[in-house]
Amino acid sequence: MADALVLDPWGTSSIKDYTKLMQQFGIEPLSEELVKELPYAHRLIRRKIIFGHRDLGIIVKALQEGSEYAVMTGIKPSGDFHLGTKLTSEEFIYFLSLSPKARGFFAVADLEAYADNRIPLEESYQIALNNLMDMLALGLDPKRVYVYRQSEEMSVLRLAFIFSRSVTYNTLEAIYGQKPFSLYFSALVQAGDILNPQLPHNDGPKPTVVPVGADQDPHIRLTRDLASKHRDDLGFIPPAATYHKLLRDLTGQEKMSKRNPMGILYLNEGLKSAKLKVMNAYTGGRATAEEQRKMGGEPEKCVIFVELLSAHFLEDDKKLEELYWDCKTGRILCGECKARAWELISGWLRDHQARRSKMRDAAERLLTEKTF
Amino acid sequence: MADALVLDPWGTSSIKDYTKLMQQFGIEPLSEELVKELPYAHRLIRRKIIFGHRDLGIIVKALQEGSEYAVMTGIKPSGDFHLGTKLTSEEFIYFLSLSPKARGFFAVADLEAYADNRIPLEESYQIALNNLMDMLALGLDPKRVYVYRQSEEMSVLRLAFIFSRSVTYNTLEAIYGQKPFSLYFSALVQAGDILNPQLPHNDGPKPTVVPVGADQDPHIRLTRDLASKHRDDLGFIPPAATYHKLLRDLTGQEKMSKRNPMGILYLNEGLKSAKLKVMNAYTGGRATAEEQRKMGGEPEKCVIFVELLSAHFLEDDKKLEELYWDCKTGRILCGECKARAWELISGWLRDHQARRSKMRDAAERLLTEKTF
Repeated sequence: MADALVLDPWGTSSIKDYTKLMQQFGIEPLSEELVKELPYAHRLIRRKIIFGHRDLGIIVKALQEGSEYAVMTGIKPSGDFHLGTKLTSEEFIYFLSLSPKARGFFAVADLEAYADNRIPLEESYQIALNNLMDMLALGLDPKRVYVYRQSEEMSVLRLAFIFSRSVTYNTLEAIYGQKPFSLYFSALVQAGDILNPQLPHNDGPKPTVVPVGADQDPHIRLTRDLASKHRDDLGFIPPAATYHKLLRDLTGQEKMSKRNPMGILYLNEGLKSAKLKVMNAYTGGRATAEEQRKMGGEPEKCVIFVELLSAHFLEDDKKLEELYWDCKTGRILCGECKARAWELISGWLRDHQARRSKMRDAAERLLTEKTF
Repeated sequence: MADALVLDPWGTSSIKDYTKLMQQFGIEPLSEELVKELPYAHRLIRRKIIFGHRDLGIIVKALQEGSEYAVMTGIKPSGDFHLGTKLTSEEFIYFLSLSPKARGFFAVADLEAYADNRIPLEESYQIALNNLMDMLALGLDPKRVYVYRQSEEMSVLRLAFIFSRSVTYNTLEAIYGQKPFSLYFSALVQAGDILNPQLPHNDGPKPTVVPVGADQDPHIRLTRDLASKHRDDLGFIPPAATYHKLLRDLTGQEKMSKRNPMGILYLNEGLKSAKLKVMNAYTGGRATAEEQRKMGGEPEKCVIFVELLSAHFLEDDKKLEELYWDCKTGRILCGECKARAWELISGWLRDHQARRSKMRDAAERLLTEKTF
């Protein structure tokens, strides 16, 4: 692929937005020089879906020195894993895979799920169990990750408490805009989650990387600010972060929402319903087949191409580029392309679901045992 | 004593303030009818230092029915116990003494001490240990109280988290005025402390009474509001509270402060320094002995009379009334009165400190073991 433009779900103007976002908030572009320092580049990096970072140099340095670092992520239990949560999961697993000295921290935000959605803690447990089955099927090494539930992790709430003394409304408002008290409270708990790996009982302080969607940057900025403020008393190193672009849903909507079920492909979805969704996905096709043969399709606008194949299901860069030009020049029409895509997707879903079904015990252990 | 006026450290205008306080915020006066329903009236009730309450009827009802109720208090570890902390401790012990079905909950706010004063958790532990030795010497039955450290009490921080969803800035500002984020955060944690006795693992929900100083009413109002909001999902009963007047320090200042050490009498204070403080206490004496013999003293303005003897060290109502009139009519001058007071106070301190010195092991057990 000569250029990442085709992979941008927001079109040209959105590229401008990401640039603006980076400039405004000081997110660094993920330069080729930096990528070369990594043992290998993940598909999401090669395709510039992960477009930026903060301080990733501290992780590169840890890799070069063979020293410990932490990778941090979490979920607010709400439902089954889908393509969006697959993205962050793969990034988490990727950063863990780069070094035997990397340790994963995975927060299950069950308190937040209760507070916001009145999901009982036991129900959160079941949801998280299901999600962890997906993560294990995606390749997560259970020996490398510490999974905890917010409701059981005293140290995170302790940190939130301490951090409440180190912020002002001005800081919070500058970062998040005017938001309800509860959101600010949650933000401090999330800062606690992100810095939890750096506490002494977790062998901290140590460099930490948090792979997130671009919309999560406010949490990263707040946490880095708090880490700096508590450098002296708690020894924190401001966490690094990588940022991925926000992908559209299957119907081309810019934000996934459960209110639009046709837009979301779940990792444990039945093949029949998955096929229906893929076949009805938003494409970059023209009004008529005739027109498309003449003018070519618009793969950069196409959910099948951008969100499904490029972001998720076609690992081979060369094949992806071929497909791009086949579409662009009108050599392949949407029907055939969808059929090919479905072949890949259904194969992936079948394999994933077969792996996943064997992961219940391992997921249960992760949720109930302290791994390290 | 015909009238409680003499016991009011604020003078007549301050009585007006307490009345206004009660009217404005809906604190009920502690009526004689209600007091009669209690098994016995504590010195602080008889002398109307405890002047008001909210919902104390729920405790009276529990007493009459012989059913369970909780008594809740806590400290932010900061230093040794003094006359101010003795007041709340005695109230706590009093409400526990009224029924074998009463259970005490005592919160050690070590997280708050760390967050506000950077007191390490281990130091808080030592301070709390010392404080508990005083409480045991004051008569606290260790079998009747559950002592916990905020830093170890997951359920309190869970509650604070949940409550953060149930408040708005408007509510918080209406109750506390415009305050920094950290204070609002603390307020939610304190609400968590107060409702902790009502959680299922503490055999809740059940009626709870919190004896506090009048300045603590905002916490009670917030907590009652949150309890009402979570009546359906968590079953909370809005907690009852009793209110005591704020007493002056030994030098007659209206608020005790460590910046004025001559004003504070510590329960474990050496007799020499205690005597110095008592002998230099602010009195209601006249300019000259001559004048005082003629006009009489002003016991209602006198720290020896109001704060030391009436509030703390002279249990016998009759003797207190005699002293009042002896002073009022000029039959006794300040020198003699101070000498008598010192006799009582030094005797009390000696006894208390002897009892206290044997309480280290019991205090340690309270801080480290779950009592029930």
